[in-house]
Amino acid sequence: MNKSMGKVYLVGAGPGAPDLLTVRAARLLARASIVFYDALVHPETVALATGANKVAVGKRCSQISTDQRFINRCLIEAAQKHEVVVRLKGGDPMLFGRAMEEIAALERAHVPYEIVPGVTAAFGAAAQLGVSLTERGVARSVAFVTPRIGHGEPQAEWVKSVLEADTAVLYMGVGRAREIQAALLDAGLSRATPIAIVEQASLPEARVFSCVLSDLHQAMDWGITGPAIIMLGEVFRRVLPAWQAELLSAFA
Amino acid sequence: MNKSMGKVYLVGAGPGAPDLLTVRAARLLARASIVFYDALVHPETVALATGANKVAVGKRCSQISTDQRFINRCLIEAAQKHEVVVRLKGGDPMLFGRAMEEIAALERAHVPYEIVPGVTAAFGAAAQLGVSLTERGVARSVAFVTPRIGHGEPQAEWVKSVLEADTAVLYMGVGRAREIQAALLDAGLSRATPIAIVEQASLPEARVFSCVLSDLHQAMDWGITGPAIIMLGEVFRRVLPAWQAELLSAFA
Repeated sequence: MNKSMGKVYLVGAGPGAPDLLTVRAARLLARASIVFYDALVHPETVALATGANKVAVGKRCSQISTDQRFINRCLIEAAQKHEVVVRLKGGDPMLFGRAMEEIAALERAHVPYEIVPGVTAAFGAAAQLGVSLTERGVARSVAFVTPRIGHGEPQAEWVKSVLEADTAVLYMGVGRAREIQAALLDAGLSRATPIAIVEQASLPEARVFSCVLSDLHQAMDWGITGPAIIMLGEVFRRVLPAWQAELLSAFA
Repeated sequence: MNKSMGKVYLVGAGPGAPDLLTVRAARLLARASIVFYDALVHPETVALATGANKVAVGKRCSQISTDQRFINRCLIEAAQKHEVVVRLKGGDPMLFGRAMEEIAALERAHVPYEIVPGVTAAFGAAAQLGVSLTERGVARSVAFVTPRIGHGEPQAEWVKSVLEADTAVLYMGVGRAREIQAALLDAGLSRATPIAIVEQASLPEARVFSCVLSDLHQAMDWGITGPAIIMLGEVFRRVLPAWQAELLSAFA
C-alpha cells in the first residue's frame, strides 16, 4: 500500500434532515478535502464539508446518473491526492447503496476505506408516522425490499419476501405503484392490507399517505415526485383514515 | 392538553459507538432534564446529557429488566415536571425497540412525543464487516427478524421470513444459536449458507465470527456475552475463512 494514500469514507447521510446525520459523519465532513455526494443528500448536509471540493455524482432513481465505474475511478484518484475522501450516500451505505461495487474497486486498488453507517429512510418514515415497524404480538419481522417490476418472473422473489414478513418496506417503488399492487394481489396478499407511503421522510416537505392495498394504484395520482417509500403491514392499521379502519374492522 | 406539559423524545442511540448517535439526538440530550436509558446504551452516550437526571431502566435480553408499565408511568410523570424528557434506546426506536407500547401510553395520557430515529445494529455490523446487506445481482431483500424459539410452531413465521429474504439479520438470538440452526436446517436452508456474527458492533471490543450454517452451533462456544447479531446470506460469503470459501466453491 502506498504510504501517502488517503482513506475513503463511505458515509451514510441519513434519511433526509441534515441533523439526522451521525456525529461521526459530521466530523468527517468537516475534515474532508473532497466529497462525492448523491443527488438525494440534503444541500445543508453537503455544506458541512466546509473545506472540501464538493462533487455531485447524481445517483437518483430514473434520472441521469453518473456511471458507477466513473465514481469508482474518482474515489481511487481522490485517495491518491487527499487524506480524507468522503463518499456521501443517502440513508445507510450498506442498504440499497451500491456500496459493494465501490468497496470492491477500492480493495482492488489497495485504497484504505471505512464505512460510517447511517439512518435509513424506513426509520425516518416510521418516526414520522409514529408507527413502530415491529410490535409485540403483531410484527416480529421486517423486510426491506426493492421491487423488481416487469422482468417476466412468474412470482418474483421480492414478492415472496414481502409476503413472508410481518412488515415490509419497499424502497424505490412509488412510480410503479400499480404494478406493485398487481403483483402483491396476484400473490394472494389481502386487499385490506394497510399501507403507508411517506414522501421526503424527516424533511419539512414530508407527506404521508395511507390506504389499503386495493387502493394502492391511486398513489399514482398523489403527485409524488420526491423520494418515497411504501410500507405494508398490520402495524400501519393505526394510520388508516378513521372511516377506513372502521369499515375494515366491521368486516373482520 | 396541559399547556405546561413537556415533551417526551424517543431517541435511537445507535449501534454502540457514542459518535454514531445522530446530531439531533446529541442536541436533545444536551437539553434534557431527565433521561431514561436502556442498559445497552453506551455510558458516554448517556453522559452527553450533562444537565439531566439519568435513570437506567435496564432493558436487556435475558437480564433483569424494568417492567414496561413502570417505564410508561415514569415517562408520563416526567413530562408533567420537565420540558425535555429523553427516552434513549439502543439502535433505532422503531425496530425491536418496544416503542409502540410507550407511544400508546403517551397518547392515552395526552403527552406530546417525538421520535428521533437511529442507526440500527445491523448497519453497524455491516459497516464493521465491510459487507453490504444488499448487492446488485446477489441480494435485493433483507429481513430483520427476532427468532422465536421453542413455541411449538411447526414452521415458525420467523423462519419463513428468513428463507424468503436474500439476506437475513437475526436480532437477539446468539444465545439460542443451536436451536436457530436446527430450525433453519429443518426448513431446508442450505448447510453451506454463509453466516457472519458480529458482537458489540462499532465498539473497540467488537468481534466478528464467520462460518456456514452447518457450523452455527459452534457459536455457543465462542464466549459471546455482549449484544450480538447473526447475519445470513450469500453476501457474507466474502468474509468466510479462505479455506472454507474454497471448499464451498469446489462443491458448487
